[in-house]
Amino acid sequence: MPTSSFPAERILLGPGPSPVPARVLHALGAPTLGHLDPQYLSIMDETCESLRQVFQTRNALTFPVSGTGMAGMECLAVNLVEPGDEVIIGVNGVFGGRMKDVMERCGATVHALEAPWGEVFTLEQVAAALDRHPRAKIVALVHAETSTGAHQPLEGFADLVHSKGALFVVDAVTSLGGHELRVDDWGIDAIYSGTQKCLSCPPGLSPVSFGERALARMDARKTKPQSWYLDVSMLRKYYLSGGVSGGGGARVYHHTAPINMTYALREALAIVLEEGLEARIARHAAMHQRLRRGLEAMGLSYIPKRSLHTLNCIGIPAGADDAATRRRLLEDYGIEIGAGLGVMAGKAWRIGLMGHGATIRNVDLVLAALRNVLA
Amino acid sequence: MPTSSFPAERILLGPGPSPVPARVLHALGAPTLGHLDPQYLSIMDETCESLRQVFQTRNALTFPVSGTGMAGMECLAVNLVEPGDEVIIGVNGVFGGRMKDVMERCGATVHALEAPWGEVFTLEQVAAALDRHPRAKIVALVHAETSTGAHQPLEGFADLVHSKGALFVVDAVTSLGGHELRVDDWGIDAIYSGTQKCLSCPPGLSPVSFGERALARMDARKTKPQSWYLDVSMLRKYYLSGGVSGGGGARVYHHTAPINMTYALREALAIVLEEGLEARIARHAAMHQRLRRGLEAMGLSYIPKRSLHTLNCIGIPAGADDAATRRRLLEDYGIEIGAGLGVMAGKAWRIGLMGHGATIRNVDLVLAALRNVLA
Repeated sequence: MPTSSFPAERILLGPGPSPVPARVLHALGAPTLGHLDPQYLSIMDETCESLRQVFQTRNALTFPVSGTGMAGMECLAVNLVEPGDEVIIGVNGVFGGRMKDVMERCGATVHALEAPWGEVFTLEQVAAALDRHPRAKIVALVHAETSTGAHQPLEGFADLVHSKGALFVVDAVTSLGGHELRVDDWGIDAIYSGTQKCLSCPPGLSPVSFGERALARMDARKTKPQSWYLDVSMLRKYYLSGGVSGGGGARVYHHTAPINMTYALREALAIVLEEGLEARIARHAAMHQRLRRGLEAMGLSYIPKRSLHTLNCIGIPAGADDAATRRRLLEDYGIEIGAGLGVMAGKAWRIGLMGHGATIRNVDLVLAALRNVLA
Repeated sequence: MPTSSFPAERILLGPGPSPVPARVLHALGAPTLGHLDPQYLSIMDETCESLRQVFQTRNALTFPVSGTGMAGMECLAVNLVEPGDEVIIGVNGVFGGRMKDVMERCGATVHALEAPWGEVFTLEQVAAALDRHPRAKIVALVHAETSTGAHQPLEGFADLVHSKGALFVVDAVTSLGGHELRVDDWGIDAIYSGTQKCLSCPPGLSPVSFGERALARMDARKTKPQSWYLDVSMLRKYYLSGGVSGGGGARVYHHTAPINMTYALREALAIVLEEGLEARIARHAAMHQRLRRGLEAMGLSYIPKRSLHTLNCIGIPAGADDAATRRRLLEDYGIEIGAGLGVMAGKAWRIGLMGHGATIRNVDLVLAALRNVLA
């Protein structure tokens, strides 16, 4: 009890969290400030500005929600959906299905656009869904479906969605900082992500960004968002107002932000921007290709037709023991890879190469370890 | 950008966050584990067990919600309230009022039991409210009203509330670990707190505990809780199930927990239990009395009739400049105290003596600093 017994270190090559650089862990342990301290407000502003750069957006309302990735999903849902709204959600894995559940809890009538797990949606499919449901107010797609490793293209969808007066909403939990993702160029109206994937920050915050169309939708609400904690009409008075004060100033206290997590996110984003987005995305692509060559040389095969670079979802080979293999990787090598999720449980492994974890050292190590354990 | 510029250290004597011990900051920066790693599950189990000891409860369903204190409030509300339910909430400050807002967003018909800011509620007042609203399903009180510094007694209420078939729900954000709080002995059915007050852990988690009556109420729900992120019917499968697995085992993945924050909370709770609850509560009482003597000797007076030990809410003396005084404390001394909140803005200061901050050193320092700045 009296000592902080540190855990044995793992090499995190699962679906997240990803390995956290020492610089970020160091920042996390900086002295705690008050959430209205001018020093903290400046750190938060800097964090939001870095998030804009990583999201490639000029959206003023870009900030980290005070919860893990799924709090970001819920934040978008409670603010953008009103009871009775029709929405179209692409469901091709666990996270599309989860968004359906979350939006239904907000009173939405969800039209699930379904595809087999591992596949993605085409422009034509979305156009047809919009024709079937012309009153849809939102079209939501998962950029990186963490349960299947499928990589959903996003270019070209916004024009289609906007032409019908709907908002284009995106889950980018497993892509932000690892895949090309151009919020403004691609016309995305609202987006959420997590810190613990390709940003290589511990879990605890969920970066979100809302564009002008989304703001207009929220401003026109007839009902309060059902969540107080995630109500953007109040959060924006804390995250956006100029000036600094503990009392009568322009910043309005809403809730106590997770101060130390903000330090860590600021540092993680600094690392992303020092590397440069383009170089970082290229590194993820190269590491994915190296892993893929190695896995396929071992006779293993990918489940999605169009795989993410950040998460590699492969079939468990005949004869291999799912749990025993993962346990040996964990116990003998200290390597975590992910089990299959949902209908993929027992059928798939998920190898993440995200952020700080996407290195030649880790690729060659996990290939060597798998060769040994599966031999 | 490239360096983690550490903030200047503050002595946090506001309404929270409180000063975080170096041991806790050190634990916070331990290597990140996966949320299904056996090491992490063991750390989480230990954290929940320590929380039970600090809450003085045997409630199995005791765990930290993955958000700051207000996420805990919302967690209780979305799980215990169904649309149309009548609830009675004691409103004598900002946080009672906030609970009213949160529960109304869950569809509750809230009967606000009002008292002037700074006062607390008697058994007779609650009995009368229950007589007026015999269908009330919840009676909620704020143990430590952070906006006024008022200390609400809780003993004896549960029998009354239970005799009418209602649940007794408590906000203990600013009391847990600093004031006597006996969840089981006092018959509290559901309770939430924060980590950044008397536990002296950074903000980011909200400890909650649900007793048998609350579980029965949740099991009998006709509707899904409106929040997926905070849905206890799913969270309990992660926090309570025995066994450990990334796939087919008994632990069911819900969301990625804030791993490093759990390390910090475990360490903060270890410090609480090493000191001992009784000694810790006595220390908070003694430091409050010392501060009170000093403030009153300066001619300052308390706003609440029955003050918290953990938070001292005093009137701003005539002629003193609210913002300038706090700014000088911050800039010259590195001391943060709190401004007034809500109707108290510009009228009150709030001096927190919480957890690691409740020391003779801090009491004498803040008194000396105030004497100097107000001279």
